[in-house]
Amino acid sequence: MKPYSQMSESELSAVKNELDGFLDKCKEKGKKLNMTRGVPSNEQLALCNEMITDLSSDDYTAANGADCRNYGGLDGIPEMKKIFADLLDLTPEEVIVGGNSSLALMFDNVASNMSHGVRDGEPWQTQGHVKFLCPSPGYDRHFTICKYFHIEMIPVALGQDGPDMDAVEKAVSSDPMIKGIWCVPKYSNPTGIVYSDETVRRFAKLKPAAEDFRIYWDNAYAFHYLGSAHAEIPNIIRLCEEEGNPNMPLVFASFSKVSFAGASVSCIASSKSNCDFIRQRLTVQTIGPDKLNQLRHVRFFKDASGVMAHMEKHAAILRRKFALVSDTLRRELDGLGIAKWTEPTGGYFVSFDSLEGCAKKIVALCAEAGVALTPAGATYPNGNDPKDSNIRIAPTFPPIGELGEALEIFCAAVKLASAEKYLSGK
Amino acid sequence: MKPYSQMSESELSAVKNELDGFLDKCKEKGKKLNMTRGVPSNEQLALCNEMITDLSSDDYTAANGADCRNYGGLDGIPEMKKIFADLLDLTPEEVIVGGNSSLALMFDNVASNMSHGVRDGEPWQTQGHVKFLCPSPGYDRHFTICKYFHIEMIPVALGQDGPDMDAVEKAVSSDPMIKGIWCVPKYSNPTGIVYSDETVRRFAKLKPAAEDFRIYWDNAYAFHYLGSAHAEIPNIIRLCEEEGNPNMPLVFASFSKVSFAGASVSCIASSKSNCDFIRQRLTVQTIGPDKLNQLRHVRFFKDASGVMAHMEKHAAILRRKFALVSDTLRRELDGLGIAKWTEPTGGYFVSFDSLEGCAKKIVALCAEAGVALTPAGATYPNGNDPKDSNIRIAPTFPPIGELGEALEIFCAAVKLASAEKYLSGK
Repeated sequence: MKPYSQMSESELSAVKNELDGFLDKCKEKGKKLNMTRGVPSNEQLALCNEMITDLSSDDYTAANGADCRNYGGLDGIPEMKKIFADLLDLTPEEVIVGGNSSLALMFDNVASNMSHGVRDGEPWQTQGHVKFLCPSPGYDRHFTICKYFHIEMIPVALGQDGPDMDAVEKAVSSDPMIKGIWCVPKYSNPTGIVYSDETVRRFAKLKPAAEDFRIYWDNAYAFHYLGSAHAEIPNIIRLCEEEGNPNMPLVFASFSKVSFAGASVSCIASSKSNCDFIRQRLTVQTIGPDKLNQLRHVRFFKDASGVMAHMEKHAAILRRKFALVSDTLRRELDGLGIAKWTEPTGGYFVSFDSLEGCAKKIVALCAEAGVALTPAGATYPNGNDPKDSNIRIAPTFPPIGELGEALEIFCAAVKLASAEKYLSGK
Repeated sequence: MKPYSQMSESELSAVKNELDGFLDKCKEKGKKLNMTRGVPSNEQLALCNEMITDLSSDDYTAANGADCRNYGGLDGIPEMKKIFADLLDLTPEEVIVGGNSSLALMFDNVASNMSHGVRDGEPWQTQGHVKFLCPSPGYDRHFTICKYFHIEMIPVALGQDGPDMDAVEKAVSSDPMIKGIWCVPKYSNPTGIVYSDETVRRFAKLKPAAEDFRIYWDNAYAFHYLGSAHAEIPNIIRLCEEEGNPNMPLVFASFSKVSFAGASVSCIASSKSNCDFIRQRLTVQTIGPDKLNQLRHVRFFKDASGVMAHMEKHAAILRRKFALVSDTLRRELDGLGIAKWTEPTGGYFVSFDSLEGCAKKIVALCAEAGVALTPAGATYPNGNDPKDSNIRIAPTFPPIGELGEALEIFCAAVKLASAEKYLSGK
């Protein structure tokens, strides 16, 4: 393979002509291929189908005697709290179980801190102009919550070991209006990196200028490994406790990609004292989450080890898809000097970097040829990727045959956009 | 029966001694009887047990083809929207289906209006000191939401036909900081009254000084009748449309007391335009409610007429309990001149008025004797019943035998507190 940077104008034109022709043919076929979001496939969902029927009509009593059909219980049935606690290496007192969406728990926590303050402190919104640190590339829905609440987003570079901790420490210790940071510490969305032990330790040792600074630790892929080895990260809640910052981290987890994305359970975990404050709000806010669905989860998974065994079944399905991404990108793009990408060992995404200024073009070319991708820039605050190079590839949902077709189109689009970039400089 | 007001001191003392003795004996028995909240009984919950198992493991597809196991769909599956729409005489476009708690929908709507304004208008919280009208006696959890958001509560008398509409009209038309009113228009909590057609019409004709004034129309007992005749109220959404106030009402409904209070579905209904604004927020806030549980409800009830047929089964159970309340109160208290109470034809409560200044005492006497009641005053804003006379009786949860025991103790406490009141004046 000859790097594009070393190709002559006529070589690049030949490449362009060939790819134009290929993509035109794809357009004519009118395919509809979707790699936009981290969505489990039908094959993955079917792994849990027995959960739909695992309660009998007289099975509605939780371990504490609570009738799951009736009112009562705001923070989860004991056995579901224990499963989350065991998975996260916490105690059940540090866990509050929510409904189908951990995003809803994050949104609500930000809303609560904006309007009512952290632990009954002064509301963020009356303190001034609120800011969050946003390791980038990151999860677009975190950024959307900030935008909704008019919270200024300050991008921080995300590297192989996590966010640039020098930048995080400097910002957090100097600016009392920095109230939060969004973290996906394990199999990060979208790069798939795992925070190093050192990164997590530096988080726990933060000395925020704002005493109401909070770490939003979205452990969305806590159990979502692909390889045979599971990544392990230090326990942020225990470390923060040891460092005298017991109330700083808020941990979120979800079964959206464990059981059913459409009928799941979620949790927020934090110090017992933080959980007590959250429960105070819950008392006003709701009559409680669906307890029968929690019981359904408990019957199906039984315990934390049951969950981990189940995740191996997900991994077996996903491994093939991620391997196909890796194989295709290597075969089509290696040596051309026009792209870099991640080969994650967990999570739901491959993060792809094109030549600067090409990402939007690639996404547009794919869309014309029938492949839907997450909008370029979505992985940066306000949708603004300063280099216009990052694209999030979500390979989990399409059947493997369609994924292969979509990836071929994607690679053609990458090559075409790159060839055009070099041609325009000739 | 001789009215207590006409009894001599010695007669009152004799009554007091006898009741002291009776309640002391109850205390010794150490009973635990609960009439605190409007909770369905085990017998009622069992009516729906088949819903727990009504999906088979390959039954997860909604009418629009959506896989209810997966992501997607923020405002409810079409068939569940249609059931709510038919029950409320609306169109599916005017309905957003939520999770287990309609209270959560109300809380969230108030939170949203406080922080982001009504329909992208100026946030309530930045406009000044927000006030709500609170027809009283009313539902304590409505009042708690106001308290949580530091919204001033202005009590309005609730009569047989609904709130004092002269007072409502005067307040709403003159004060632009009055932003809302809490209504339970059908089988009101706690008095059981049904708003008259005239009341509903006057609501629709309101000319609020605040263009972002909203009617919180909590139709919590929309289908929860006890008698053979169902109360009907005019359609607030249609009437408001006709009066040129299409976006003023927000209607809430819930299946908490239709299916399972612990695994239910809820809805907010309003103009299509209002629903569009709510959907915008939902996009940021959540990945959506549990869709499999909606499908479970659809399979069980099939349609709105299935819901109404099911409500007749609830009514058959509840009727006996409400008859027992009525019979016991009449037998024990009629003619004594010390109490008034309601005999509702729907809903979950009997509203009881003691002599002035006796309610707290009665609740305390009951607690000592083993009967838990809703705290006196809970039915008024800030827990402050100016006459200290209203008590909410919730007869639905206890088995009928226990209910009978609890009511005897209650009546004894009423008589004792009343006798003591008259004695203290002698």
